[in-house]
Amino acid sequence: MIIVFTGNGKGKTTAALGTALRSIGNGKKVKMIQFIKGPFKSGEDSSWQKLSSNFELIKGGIGFVGILNDPHSFSDHKKAADNTWELCKKTIKSRKYNLVIMDEINAAMDLKLIDDQEIKEFLQQSSENIDIICTGRNAPKWLIDIADLVTEMKDVKHPFNAGKQAKRGIEF
Amino acid sequence: MIIVFTGNGKGKTTAALGTALRSIGNGKKVKMIQFIKGPFKSGEDSSWQKLSSNFELIKGGIGFVGILNDPHSFSDHKKAADNTWELCKKTIKSRKYNLVIMDEINAAMDLKLIDDQEIKEFLQQSSENIDIICTGRNAPKWLIDIADLVTEMKDVKHPFNAGKQAKRGIEF
Repeated sequence: MIIVFTGNGKGKTTAALGTALRSIGNGKKVKMIQFIKGPFKSGEDSSWQKLSSNFELIKGGIGFVGILNDPHSFSDHKKAADNTWELCKKTIKSRKYNLVIMDEINAAMDLKLIDDQEIKEFLQQSSENIDIICTGRNAPKWLIDIADLVTEMKDVKHPFNAGKQAKRGIEF
Repeated sequence: MIIVFTGNGKGKTTAALGTALRSIGNGKKVKMIQFIKGPFKSGEDSSWQKLSSNFELIKGGIGFVGILNDPHSFSDHKKAADNTWELCKKTIKSRKYNLVIMDEINAAMDLKLIDDQEIKEFLQQSSENIDIICTGRNAPKWLIDIADLVTEMKDVKHPFNAGKQAKRGIEF
């Protein structure tokens, strides 16, 4: 089954984490591979390590793309995304996991960091007997077409709008 | 901070679970109180027990309201929802938790199981120094007005549409 969490609102990666938790609770093996988001520390790490040996988290990205003071070139980001995608393929093909989360892969495709034609062909052939979650805004139309479940997280109201700061443990 | 996950799509409770996980990872104490959803087993239970002593899950509801073969009367559901709301107030007032999740409280208000005027007054006075998540479809306008962060989970595509069955560990 292919599940897509897209849209401009909060809750996409968070819903993927919640789904992972439910799967682990049912004895499933889960691997989450993050595109784009960098190696900075967030609440996930410590909680996951405690959680279960059935969960693995890989951070493939080297930070947000094109933000102010981004120390990386576009081709650095592209290389990181390509390597991350290769890891996704290997992970899915290995048949060792019941659920594979490709976090921010939609954004990576939208930013042209990875070739979505190859991903399309791969996913069309590889979603039997495995659950795959693709998160990130601007999911391509072909992905929505082949997906089994798609939720759009729509930003109705956001603290940044009101000038508040992100809260550690809640907001990221 | 008041956070609302609403809309007709999948991912509302799941995003709340993911948020709980992140909070626990930051050493916070979390309590999730479920309205409406009944005591039937799901993937949450076993994974939560393993997760952390900083997480508590209370199932206040006695099943979905008004479904086929519902063995409970509306007043049974109302009584259960009233008791669940009393527990929420006690939990928030206790100041023992950094994050309190009121799961499906929006639906409980929408179904008139609980008096939303009282909830409005309580939340307006009680959201300092605590994070509160309200999930469920049809969040009332006043709640969106007082909330800090609101995401609408929109159903774009759902397996039930395509006649597929819910998958244990993914779909509920």
